[in-house]
Formats: sequence, structure tokens, C-alpha cells
Amino acid sequence: MTSIQPGGSLIIAWQLKYKHVLVVGGGDVAAGRLQSVLATDATVSLIAPRDRLHPTVVALIKQFPQRVSYRDRAFKDADLDDASLVLTCIDDIDTSRRIVELCRARRVPVNAADIPNLCDFYFGSQIRQGPLQIMISTNGNGPKLANIIRRRIEATLPPHAGKAIENVGLLRAKLRQRAPGTGGELSKARMSWMSQVCESWSLDELALMDERIMERLLADGWELAADKKRVEASTTKPQLMA
Amino acid sequence: MTSIQPGGSLIIAWQLKYKHVLVVGGGDVAAGRLQSVLATDATVSLIAPRDRLHPTVVALIKQFPQRVSYRDRAFKDADLDDASLVLTCIDDIDTSRRIVELCRARRVPVNAADIPNLCDFYFGSQIRQGPLQIMISTNGNGPKLANIIRRRIEATLPPHAGKAIENVGLLRAKLRQRAPGTGGELSKARMSWMSQVCESWSLDELALMDERIMERLLADGWELAADKKRVEASTTKPQLMA
Repeated sequence: MTSIQPGGSLIIAWQLKYKHVLVVGGGDVAAGRLQSVLATDATVSLIAPRDRLHPTVVALIKQFPQRVSYRDRAFKDADLDDASLVLTCIDDIDTSRRIVELCRARRVPVNAADIPNLCDFYFGSQIRQGPLQIMISTNGNGPKLANIIRRRIEATLPPHAGKAIENVGLLRAKLRQRAPGTGGELSKARMSWMSQVCESWSLDELALMDERIMERLLADGWELAADKKRVEASTTKPQLMA
Repeated sequence: MTSIQPGGSLIIAWQLKYKHVLVVGGGDVAAGRLQSVLATDATVSLIAPRDRLHPTVVALIKQFPQRVSYRDRAFKDADLDDASLVLTCIDDIDTSRRIVELCRARRVPVNAADIPNLCDFYFGSQIRQGPLQIMISTNGNGPKLANIIRRRIEATLPPHAGKAIENVGLLRAKLRQRAPGTGGELSKARMSWMSQVCESWSLDELALMDERIMERLLADGWELAADKKRVEASTTKPQLMA
């Protein structure tokens, strides 16, 4: 029997490259949403009367003129036309419900702040360190506790974890250049070699890798080991780091 | 200037209650996907020839007969009809691409294993403890490192964090019963009181709360304090825990 606890959410990393997000509202909740969206590569339209804008929203509109289009007015149905994701953060529950209905009809995912039963998805408390993203969700039970747990995780997370991940991504790209192709066996050999490097090097060591170390690791570890067992790949570490 | 790092994903907790998920494929990747989906409240159709099923997939089909419909055959377009989310985990890249195109036309979110540029969303490494869910994403740079970081976080996470969150959810529901309504001021007072409880009680203490303690905390902390400043609410803790 596999141990599975039903009742949770499907936590996923939504891709927003080349996509457009609509944010309706400009208060403190909108400020948080805008920050989350700007942490991706999406462009954003933000619709809200100017006198309702939170100072952070004003600052972000100024800071990202290429990515944020601001409209000083109330929501219009046509705002949905180019949106692939919609976030409402307004006090007017009726308008919010109407926007959700319009989104359903167009099959556009939507989050309506404060109306959890109408949301296709929820947000959580987040940590970001370069390519590393960690999300803590309490499934609506306690946003405050999510923040407390986030701070605890942040305090124990190695400060160079993001850099380590960046370097592993680079090493993997270099490995794919040396051993290209998408064959089943080759794919598995690459994955297994990368796994060994990740398991036998510490996060701090991975974070310290530079181009020279990567090239030598690939030459001595991957290519010389190609005839032998790849298990030996990681043994080249001590002399590389010395 | 707000410090924002673009280039990330929007990590979200997707809601799947009353929804249906289509999984195409039955190998080891499908086994992981099936576990993630069964950890929500969704129902699932899994489409794959029986001789390709991973033992975990076979076990899960048996364990969740009410939630998993299994079809011993290849994918057909009609399989998409009732799906609100699609996950392909097959070696046949052409079929996978075709499924993604069909999903795009129907605006159904899709993840195609091993074809990252076609995915609407990615998965990451996950921790689950009752209502608590933590997701670690490296944005495709190093799935192995995501696992290593997950294990580190798991090792430092208080074992009762999930129970603490469950109790805070209960306390919040009880508070809403005592002080119902959705007014702006009342909402804020409730949120601020809950925050104080979460900040001044440790996770272990929150995990130990039972019905009696919750009722006394609400009576002494919330109601008696209603005329005074609610800041005193949390001072009732020492005698409650004694």
C-alpha cells in the first residue's frame, strides 16, 4: 500500500513566459500578486483607479514600464481578451464573481482574492533564491503559519543553494552538448551521472564550481569514465577542488 | 526599489476538487504523477496498455477503485472530453505533441513529461504533512538537487507542523462562528487576533491545542478582550497550557 493523503492541492510551477496576466485591483493584495507575477517572465495589465493604488504598486509600475501596462479605471470585459491568467483583488465581491464567470466561460484560470471557493488556484508563502523556488501552502488553514514556516526554512537553507542549482543547470547543459541526443539509454546515463555529481558534492562545493572545474569534471569524469563504470565520475572531486 | 528576480515560475496550489484529470502513460513517471493527483481530491483516468504498467501504478489502481478509472489501451482524442487537466508520460514524442495541441485548442492545462517547452506547468519535489504542502522547484535546472533540498527541509521541519496548521484552521473556523460576518473591520480584527496567536504560541504548542483549550482561548482571549485591546489575547496561554 502506498501512503497517500488525499485532500491536498496539486502544487505546480506555472509557466508564464510570453504570456499575459490581468490583475484587477491595486491595493495591498494586488501589490503581492504583482510581485509574484513580475518574478516570472509574464507581462501584466493592472486595472484600478489611481486613487486606490498601494505605494508598492505605484513603485512597481514605475520600475517595470516594459512589463506592466497600467489603466486608471474600473474593469471592462474586454480586459480579458489577451489574458491567459486572471487575478482579482478588489473589495467588490459582485464584480469579482462576474469576472470569475467570464473567466470560466473562456477557460482562463482565475484567482479571486478572499473568495476561495471560486479560485482555480491559491497562492502560498514563497522563498526565491535564483532558480530555486520554494512554496509553502497550508491549503487555506493558516497563511500566518505559512509565513512562520517559511522563515524557519529560510533560516536553515544554505545561502548558496540557488547558485549551486544554477551551476548544476550549466553543467547539465554542457553535458548535453558533449553527449547530445535523446535516446533512452543515453538519457539515463546522463541523468545517472548528474545524480552522482549532485549526491557526492555538497551544495557549497556545487556553488563554487566554475567553468574550469566543470570542463575538467566533464573531461575526466564523464568522458574518461565512458568505458568504465560511471560511478567513478565523482571521485575526481578532491583534486578538482584542491 | 522592490527587489524582484524575474525568470521564475508562478508557483501555485491548483485546486482539483470535483475535477477530472487525464494521465496518458503507465510507467515510472506516470506512477509519480498519479501519486501527486491522488494527493488531491480529483478523480483520474489513466490510459495505458496493461503490459506497460509500473507496479506502483497497478497498486494505486487497486487501492483507489473509486477515484481511478483505468483503460487498457492507447490514447484516443475522446479521452480529453471530461479532463480539466492532462498529464502525458509516454515515450512517443509525436503522440505527446499531438495531445498537447488538442489541449491547447480546448484550453486545458497540460504537462508533457520530457518536453518542457510544451508544458503549461512543471512539477517539483514535494513535502506533505496533513494540510501542509511544501514544493521545491529548481525551474528545470536540477531535479536531483530539488530532492536533496527537500530532504534537508524535511529533516529540519518540526514533526508536528501539520497538526499545528490543522488546529489553527479549526480555531479560525470556531472564531468565525463566534464572530461571523465579512465586514472589513471585523475581518481585520479576526485576522490580527489569529496572527497574534500564531506568533506567540510555538508550533509544538499549537499542535497540542485540543477543543477545551480552543474554547477557553476564544472565551478568555477573544471575547473578554473584545472591549480591551486584543493584544492581550495571547497572554492567556501560560495558564491554558499548564
